Parts: sequence; C-alpha cells; structure tokens
Amino acid sequence: MDFEISKAIEVLSTTPATLRSLLENLSEAWVGPVIQNPESKIQNGDWAPYDIIGHLIHGEETDWIPRARIILAQSDDRTFVPFDRFAQFENSKGKSLTQLLDEFARLRAENLDVLRSWNVTEDQLHLEGMHPELGRVTLSQLLSTWVVHDLNHIRQIVTVMAKRYGIEVGVWKEYLSILK
Amino acid sequence: MDFEISKAIEVLSTTPATLRSLLENLSEAWVGPVIQNPESKIQNGDWAPYDIIGHLIHGEETDWIPRARIILAQSDDRTFVPFDRFAQFENSKGKSLTQLLDEFARLRAENLDVLRSWNVTEDQLHLEGMHPELGRVTLSQLLSTWVVHDLNHIRQIVTVMAKRYGIEVGVWKEYLSILK
Repeated sequence: MDFEISKAIEVLSTTPATLRSLLENLSEAWVGPVIQNPESKIQNGDWAPYDIIGHLIHGEETDWIPRARIILAQSDDRTFVPFDRFAQFENSKGKSLTQLLDEFARLRAENLDVLRSWNVTEDQLHLEGMHPELGRVTLSQLLSTWVVHDLNHIRQIVTVMAKRYGIEVGVWKEYLSILK
Repeated sequence: MDFEISKAIEVLSTTPATLRSLLENLSEAWVGPVIQNPESKIQNGDWAPYDIIGHLIHGEETDWIPRARIILAQSDDRTFVPFDRFAQFENSKGKSLTQLLDEFARLRAENLDVLRSWNVTEDQLHLEGMHPELGRVTLSQLLSTWVVHDLNHIRQIVTVMAKRYGIEVGVWKEYLSILK
C-alpha cells in the first residue's frame, strides 16, 4: 500500500476514539497496573493501558510533529532529539485514565491540524532527517511509522488485557494466538 | 485476574463500538481484501478486517451463547457443535462493512441481554460441557474465552492493517514489534 497522507490521517484521526471506546468503561482490574504472574505470561515490564496512553501523549508532544518540522526545515543539523520511551511514568502522575484519554485526543487533533495545514507535497515526502540510531529517514517513513506506532500500541493494550485471562480460558489457550 | 461475569461483560459490551471506531471511516485500501506481498509479510491466508467482522458475527450466532446453553442445560449430551471458522466467506457476501458492523453490534447486545437474564451463579460457572476437540471445559472458561477471542481479533485487525505499511516505514520496522 503506497503512502498517502490522506490515508495515514484516516487512521491517525480515529485512534483517540478507538482507545476511548476500548478503555473508558473498564474497571481498574482491566486497565490498572500490571501484576506480574508467570503463569499468565504477564511480565514485570509489561505496560498497563494507563502507561501506554501516557506514552502516546509524549509522542504527540515530542516525536512526530517536531521531527516532521526538522525534516521540512532542511537546516544543516537534521538530527532528531532522542525520544524518551519512559517519560510517561513521571508525566502521567496524578492523572486519571480519562484525563489522559482527553489529553491525547486534544493533542492528536491539534497535530493533525498542523499536518493538514502544511499541504505537504509529493517531493517533500522524500525529504530526509537523521534519526539518532537508525540514520537517514524520509518524511513519508516518519508519517507511516506514526500510523503503525498507533496500531502497535492498540495491539499492546489488547494483548496485555487478554493476558489477564491467560489462566481463566483453560484449555482454550491453545487456540488463542494472543496468549502465546 | 479471577473471572467475574460483570468484568467480562465490560469488555464484551464495548467491542462493537471499538471496532466501529477503528474501521468505519477507513478507505477500502485499509479494510478491503488483503493483497499478498511477501516483502510486507502479508500472507495469502490473512483475513481482511471485513472477514474478521463476519467471523465475529458467526460466533454470536453459533458459538458463545449456544454453547453456554448446552452447559447450563446439563443434559446427557453436552458436546458442542463444531464451530465453522470459514462461514463468513459465504455469509458476508453482498454486505457492506457498515452492515456487518451493525449486525455484529445488534447480535452482541442481544446475547449480552440473554447472558444477564440468566443471573448465572458461582456454582453454575463451574458446570462443564464437552468441546469436540479440547474435551471438558467449564462455563467460566467459555465466557473468558469469549472475551479473549474479541481481543484476539482486534489484535488481528490492527496487525493486518499495520502490515500494509510494512515497507513504507523503512528502517523503523526494527522498532515495531507488530511488523515482526
């Protein structure tokens, strides 16, 4: 599937509502801190849904649009600021899950307004920036990654939720690839 | 996480809205038939989101509640009717994705009304039925599996969507576990 900004925006614009639907009416037992349990394959480092929304917020603030600006500016130094994958553990403190979902929805809508306002051309999609670890990357790769990153974290959320029933499903576990 | 019907219903009741949010405003390029492409790791047998909603509909009609009825009846033959994993390829013909999402939402709401109306007791959760391949299973295992099955298919949908950008993300692929 070739990259087109309009198709990327289709997914990016729906993620906040999808996460809200998935999470907003669930009890703490589903969305709260992950409790380690080797038998259900929940790992100590697994992020709870709460942590993941915080991570997505930090991406809106420091990753996608700031990096796109660096690429579009084409100044001498096109190296991105490294992304802090653990910032949410500090930034989300004291906030409810609903507050985080609201904040994510607001930031995402603002960022998509910025992206649309740029009217990025086909030529600009091939402009490059410098990723601190991966090296040269293009604007279309950055924007594609923004989309896949959303999908990746929806996947992570449903996976960590499913693992909470890893024992309860009994012998059906064999049929459920999400528990493997 | 111990099984409780109220907590299972939290997830089961939100799945139709989550799928609607995720899929309803996407173009055919995101939700339509999967085109095989070895480089992006899309396989010929991968189901498109359209196929998956059809599969969930067939589960509402023939799997979860009918099997729960067999368990609760405790008649001499407690063996479930085998589930047809491919019924949707026939049953969905001629229907739009929106029609399928509507049908799934209606059937799920009806089935949860039935489940709630039973006022299942703790003792009934331990009653058993006979799975044609897996053997003896309990009502609580069946209901837990219903929940995890939803999550498994949300995961499958976002995974097959992400793979459509498997090439477009370039070197970022390394960081995106959903593409592995």
